[in-house]
Amino acid sequence: MKILRSIEDTRATVQAWYKKGETVALVPTMGYLHQGHLSLVKIAKENADHVLVSIFVNPTQFGPNEDFDKYPRDFEHDEALCKESGVDGIFYPTKELMYAEDHSTWVQEENLSKTLCGVTRPIHFRGVATVCLKLFNITQCQVAVFGRKDAQQVLIIARMVRDLNVPVKIIKAPLIREEDGLARSSRNKYLSKSDHQQALALSRAVSKVKKLFDAGECSSSVLLDAAHSEIDPSGGKIDYVEIMSQRALRPIATITEPALLAVAVKYGKTRLIDNVFLEI
Amino acid sequence: MKILRSIEDTRATVQAWYKKGETVALVPTMGYLHQGHLSLVKIAKENADHVLVSIFVNPTQFGPNEDFDKYPRDFEHDEALCKESGVDGIFYPTKELMYAEDHSTWVQEENLSKTLCGVTRPIHFRGVATVCLKLFNITQCQVAVFGRKDAQQVLIIARMVRDLNVPVKIIKAPLIREEDGLARSSRNKYLSKSDHQQALALSRAVSKVKKLFDAGECSSSVLLDAAHSEIDPSGGKIDYVEIMSQRALRPIATITEPALLAVAVKYGKTRLIDNVFLEI
Repeated sequence: MKILRSIEDTRATVQAWYKKGETVALVPTMGYLHQGHLSLVKIAKENADHVLVSIFVNPTQFGPNEDFDKYPRDFEHDEALCKESGVDGIFYPTKELMYAEDHSTWVQEENLSKTLCGVTRPIHFRGVATVCLKLFNITQCQVAVFGRKDAQQVLIIARMVRDLNVPVKIIKAPLIREEDGLARSSRNKYLSKSDHQQALALSRAVSKVKKLFDAGECSSSVLLDAAHSEIDPSGGKIDYVEIMSQRALRPIATITEPALLAVAVKYGKTRLIDNVFLEI
Repeated sequence: MKILRSIEDTRATVQAWYKKGETVALVPTMGYLHQGHLSLVKIAKENADHVLVSIFVNPTQFGPNEDFDKYPRDFEHDEALCKESGVDGIFYPTKELMYAEDHSTWVQEENLSKTLCGVTRPIHFRGVATVCLKLFNITQCQVAVFGRKDAQQVLIIARMVRDLNVPVKIIKAPLIREEDGLARSSRNKYLSKSDHQQALALSRAVSKVKKLFDAGECSSSVLLDAAHSEIDPSGGKIDYVEIMSQRALRPIATITEPALLAVAVKYGKTRLIDNVFLEI
């Protein structure tokens, strides 16, 4: 497995594959890999001849009061997990490689980015869209795999790819949970034991809504009441509990098009998100 | 010569070339082609196996009070010129093909775009950067050729390519003039005979500054005085006459790094630009 620390090395590696007619799938990550990431690698392997994982804690998607500095990092562990999983290469750039001192070009999605996490994290998705386009261009991958855990992110990336005609196929991979139901996240390590217990309300809420929806309930207010009945007593600080159209990420009263239940709640100092895609 | 009206046709055409190891240079235009564009085609042919010209009057780079509707168009003439010049294909999309009804992703360069033409045309370069990235992604060209006539544009596109790691080589081609010196532009057709005569002050100013600079004059104020001595009496309405660094497009007092004299002046109802790159 190659560790690719420069753009030249990365391009040379992928060009050698492309010349043989082989394809590459990229799994963009911020490292501190867990089973969720590895499930993306597995899907990537099924969809291309080679898999690259990028590990880059992208500073431009963190707000000034967010956790960029303390975001967990463990490259050696990540490297071992990638090797075991049959990854062909890790693209592992520095901040300086990714952003010139006078970097001044941004990719901004202006509708889907304004709701849900975009309300409290106004520059987050600009940073995400910009770094993902950079990673696509550096690797010239044909496929990129994103988890539905970050539902808004994957919808925004898919929109960017459509709007800018990026020649990359985006695969939306299933959200992966811990055994007790908590959605897997590198940030779960911040949770105290009691925070973790309280946070299980999120997956219970999501699961309850999914069951009601599958049984035919299409009223957002009924479904949201069900979600709140789990989340409200859990002791978390709610950022949002919303049902929105996947197309526009705007609230809908009745689910007559593909929709999304998305929740963000803070337990202790840790903000967690969870969601379920409600498909028509 | 192929007329490519869909993204699928365009991709199929270039993919067939790429499979043979052949390269493609793109010349992005808004049509109404003149000798300036054809000089770009010639440079494109010298730098790749195949040349595509895109013809698209991009609505998103025109402000609400600008000349989108009356921008000159003549596809049959453009087609004939391209054929004569040995162009392999014209990418000729509709507005609907380029922009989905709910298009919401933009490429915004935030420093170089703020000065010169960006002051009076605040959304112009966002539209230019976005459409150029789309055209690069649709054609997956290896090379793209831009004229130095639009000096700020070519610097912004080069910055975008650097910042977003776009795998395209940008060639900055020389500005081409009419026999009397006027910088070639599709908008020259708007000029009355007397406007045209008055507008020759621009090329005289540019040429005078270039001569002084080549003779060793590095003071911007001296060089700008020389430019004004031609332009001020010409009867045009000055938008700007500036000497700026190429790197940051900020005014510099002494030319100690690659710089640019750029002018924009309105004659009659027609805003013209001219410039010269002052290389160190």
